[in-house]
Amino acid sequence: MVASAINFAQKLGLFAEPWSPRVIAEMNDYQFKLAKLRGEFVWHAHEDTDETFVVLHGTLSMRFRDRVETVRAGEMIVVPRGVEHCPHAQDECHVLLIEPRGVVNTGDAGGALTAPNDVWL
Amino acid sequence: MVASAINFAQKLGLFAEPWSPRVIAEMNDYQFKLAKLRGEFVWHAHEDTDETFVVLHGTLSMRFRDRVETVRAGEMIVVPRGVEHCPHAQDECHVLLIEPRGVVNTGDAGGALTAPNDVWL
Repeated sequence: MVASAINFAQKLGLFAEPWSPRVIAEMNDYQFKLAKLRGEFVWHAHEDTDETFVVLHGTLSMRFRDRVETVRAGEMIVVPRGVEHCPHAQDECHVLLIEPRGVVNTGDAGGALTAPNDVWL
Repeated sequence: MVASAINFAQKLGLFAEPWSPRVIAEMNDYQFKLAKLRGEFVWHAHEDTDETFVVLHGTLSMRFRDRVETVRAGEMIVVPRGVEHCPHAQDECHVLLIEPRGVVNTGDAGGALTAPNDVWL
């Protein structure tokens, strides 16, 4: 494994589909994924793991059952395991996801927005 | 645990010391730390874990024994476990570190630049 710099903007230029995370790096058994968010996702939870969103561009509205947390570029949020959440982005938002290898984007919900896992850029 | 947005710039305004990582969040047994880098660190390795640097501001020169990798704002690098490295920043550089809880900044090297661990902002 060669340790090289990974440029987020360059990698984000390689795909357009929203809600389709692409792996850009691994650290131990964790993965770093870039994703483009646009509109409404689905309510879901990850029973076995926390999940981190670092916002690189735009604004993420992270909906929880009791509130909405606004996460802007230059901010991050850790969604605790088992907590239902529904990401929403009124305008396109780019995020860096950090989570263990094998986590599916829709968690326990499944459905049409479930993306193939472990797709590398 | 309440999932709240964490603003990097706001947190970076709370300390000035270089080479002194501050924890801002945890994800499972991993920690997110902010650090300010200025000048030369020490050669070291982490035998048990990879280590991730996301550059938020400035430029990080990550020295390896056989080359230097330049990592700019908007870029990241994963240093593999066991690989000797020596971070260097000619001008102040701000990074987000991601690594398992308990990792000491100087790894196997120790010395004067060893920072207290698990210091939260």
